[in-house]
Amino acid sequence: MDCRIKSGNDEKNMAISPLAPLDVPDMPAIAGVKLATAAAGIRYKGRTDVLLAILDKGTTVAGVFTRSKCPSAPVEWCRAKLAQGAGAGSARVLVVNSGNANAFTGKTGRQATALTAAIAAKAVGCQAGEVFLASTGVIGEPLDAAKFDGVLSDLAAQAVPGDWMSAARAIMTTDTFPKVATATVTLGKAKVTINGMAKGAGMIAPDMATMLSFVFTDAPISAAALRSLLKAGVEDTFNAVTIDGDTSTSDTLLAFATGTAAAHGAPRIGRASDPRLKAFKKGFQEVLANLAEQVARDGEGARKLVEIIVEGAVSKASARRIAMSIANSPLVKTAIAGEDANWGRVVMAVGKAGEPADRDRLSISFNGIRVANRGARDPSYDEAEVSAAMKQPEIRIKVALGLGKGRDRVLTCDLTKEYVAINGDYRS
Amino acid sequence: MDCRIKSGNDEKNMAISPLAPLDVPDMPAIAGVKLATAAAGIRYKGRTDVLLAILDKGTTVAGVFTRSKCPSAPVEWCRAKLAQGAGAGSARVLVVNSGNANAFTGKTGRQATALTAAIAAKAVGCQAGEVFLASTGVIGEPLDAAKFDGVLSDLAAQAVPGDWMSAARAIMTTDTFPKVATATVTLGKAKVTINGMAKGAGMIAPDMATMLSFVFTDAPISAAALRSLLKAGVEDTFNAVTIDGDTSTSDTLLAFATGTAAAHGAPRIGRASDPRLKAFKKGFQEVLANLAEQVARDGEGARKLVEIIVEGAVSKASARRIAMSIANSPLVKTAIAGEDANWGRVVMAVGKAGEPADRDRLSISFNGIRVANRGARDPSYDEAEVSAAMKQPEIRIKVALGLGKGRDRVLTCDLTKEYVAINGDYRS
Repeated sequence: MDCRIKSGNDEKNMAISPLAPLDVPDMPAIAGVKLATAAAGIRYKGRTDVLLAILDKGTTVAGVFTRSKCPSAPVEWCRAKLAQGAGAGSARVLVVNSGNANAFTGKTGRQATALTAAIAAKAVGCQAGEVFLASTGVIGEPLDAAKFDGVLSDLAAQAVPGDWMSAARAIMTTDTFPKVATATVTLGKAKVTINGMAKGAGMIAPDMATMLSFVFTDAPISAAALRSLLKAGVEDTFNAVTIDGDTSTSDTLLAFATGTAAAHGAPRIGRASDPRLKAFKKGFQEVLANLAEQVARDGEGARKLVEIIVEGAVSKASARRIAMSIANSPLVKTAIAGEDANWGRVVMAVGKAGEPADRDRLSISFNGIRVANRGARDPSYDEAEVSAAMKQPEIRIKVALGLGKGRDRVLTCDLTKEYVAINGDYRS
Repeated sequence: MDCRIKSGNDEKNMAISPLAPLDVPDMPAIAGVKLATAAAGIRYKGRTDVLLAILDKGTTVAGVFTRSKCPSAPVEWCRAKLAQGAGAGSARVLVVNSGNANAFTGKTGRQATALTAAIAAKAVGCQAGEVFLASTGVIGEPLDAAKFDGVLSDLAAQAVPGDWMSAARAIMTTDTFPKVATATVTLGKAKVTINGMAKGAGMIAPDMATMLSFVFTDAPISAAALRSLLKAGVEDTFNAVTIDGDTSTSDTLLAFATGTAAAHGAPRIGRASDPRLKAFKKGFQEVLANLAEQVARDGEGARKLVEIIVEGAVSKASARRIAMSIANSPLVKTAIAGEDANWGRVVMAVGKAGEPADRDRLSISFNGIRVANRGARDPSYDEAEVSAAMKQPEIRIKVALGLGKGRDRVLTCDLTKEYVAINGDYRS
């Protein structure tokens, strides 16, 4: 718990989200991964803002990124490194800074990524092409990469296995708690570990990944297989979370596999279809789902975690679009903030989604209490009972369309005055 | 001004929007239109909530409505009346109530529209099929149309030409001021008048029309021509306004032409393509544009009117989608509320729109001050100058994409804590 109490964003002195998980897992070390953090003064004062992860030789990497047409310089850097022919998919270093996104910084931004990678490569002793970069924070401010000179070589000397909480804390911006998750599964006859961290809070919408998330494993998995797992895994986890419908320029999810578990018998996996991956896939998925839920739990100003389930749609894709229409509706989100079971706004959001829906078949429930049935208020609906349910910190809205078998689920949070306060003066 | 000072929503005691127009036009009477309002106690206490408009025989009508898949019962009623063969497009009565939208009310809702129309038809002495209905307010509550019995016959007896401000006030919900506009133009050699009113405030997004708006003219124009004018007129006016991206179940824009100006020489117009309509079209468009802007000026909790101009897009449609992505972004809207020229969030909103955009050609200005140019911060950008500009009540964001000739403009407002407060407990 200590880690969470210390984790507030010092700049804002924000209280930890009441939705933060009660239990923080013990994060085991992963052989082949060493971590170090520093306060480089990129933007924040009195807190860490740089993470260096050093990866053993032979580490494979895969990534998914924002679909924004205005991606950040680090996103372009990572994409280019992953696309290069020989050596693509191998990684030795990850450098993450918070406070400055290095986005919309033009030529300066490209120079900053190249310089950061060169500094990191020199500090660790690898090629610049094996360095992966991610930045989060303000858009449009030039990033002074020269600040990393010295810092990264110090970090390389200090890096140790295992300090995952410090790592997760160094990548936060308006997050109120660090987000980590872990799973240990069997691969062949060996135990392998999957550790993940994420940061979120605002500018979070599902168009590839959350803002920043990094997953590490000691399993010996090829870059191609890792890429398949990531692409499949992100769809119902990070891509099913929205805080404000605002897709970041910097969304990055990178997965690194050091392969060190091969030394104690884990089989080398080339393809995602390998049946020996079954337990690993499940664990990997659980880590992504856990991190994605933590992102929703730390939505800016969030006081309620909101799960939206749409069923009976004509397809899963249609259910997703309707669920997102509900999840991104300011009127639905403010009603939940006001602990008001305003299901009329859910009807509105279903209606505006542009997807097949028949008003007269529509049923809606809040936390298991059916409030609307077949196109009208449920006759048995008891306002007092629903009002009591709305005081819970977790709200489940279920919408049954009665048209087909399409079902989907998304996570979001409420829209509070604190969201407006946080975002009304974030840059100033 | 008096009308505005009295117009606050008594239930909430809300202050009038600081963006309310300073001048309220004198609204001339329109021959063939009589108005009356009453406090029927549908939901509000101590204020009017029913409007009856009686139209002379021979009045034509056209309408555009929400594209919601869950439309309100009055929307379905109006659509059906406009679609019926013989007699379609003629109107004798408009009944509007505020406080209850009669939406998602199932069979009860359909019965309520039929009963309201029957009561109105009896009061005025016409067919139920000549009665047009609109309701605005809470979704999902049964509307007790029996309350109109007596009220509507009293109103029919009291109705007089010319009290447009009272009419505009009776249709308000969370609006803080009544919205009217007028134009007088020449048709043939006769002067004709176009009067309009609208209500807006929340659940406003551009997918057909604003929540409720009614336009009246004495010009003798066929229903078919009126329909063409409406469809063309709405695109760059009501459909170019968004408060919160939430499309209502009840959006209704009805236009009525009494034709009484034929008595003093106005020519009868059968087709919208008639060249004699030139001045009328311009006046009609101005009335719609004026009302639509007032809706943005009275966005719930609004403190800033925001005009977003996108130019250099590959098409007008693409410019519209990018402008809407900016206008609906909670992060852009909260930044404006905080008087922060956070153009990085504009970049984000351009990037997430899914439309062609080239980061390295993008330029952005706030109130004429260029802050970003060709993919990076403008070197001449002076933060103090921009900060001063952001304190203005009207903010113009211009985005130049540098790709083509597509240009569009939308209006919105900022997202304030008051929006959250208004919508967090609207129903309770």
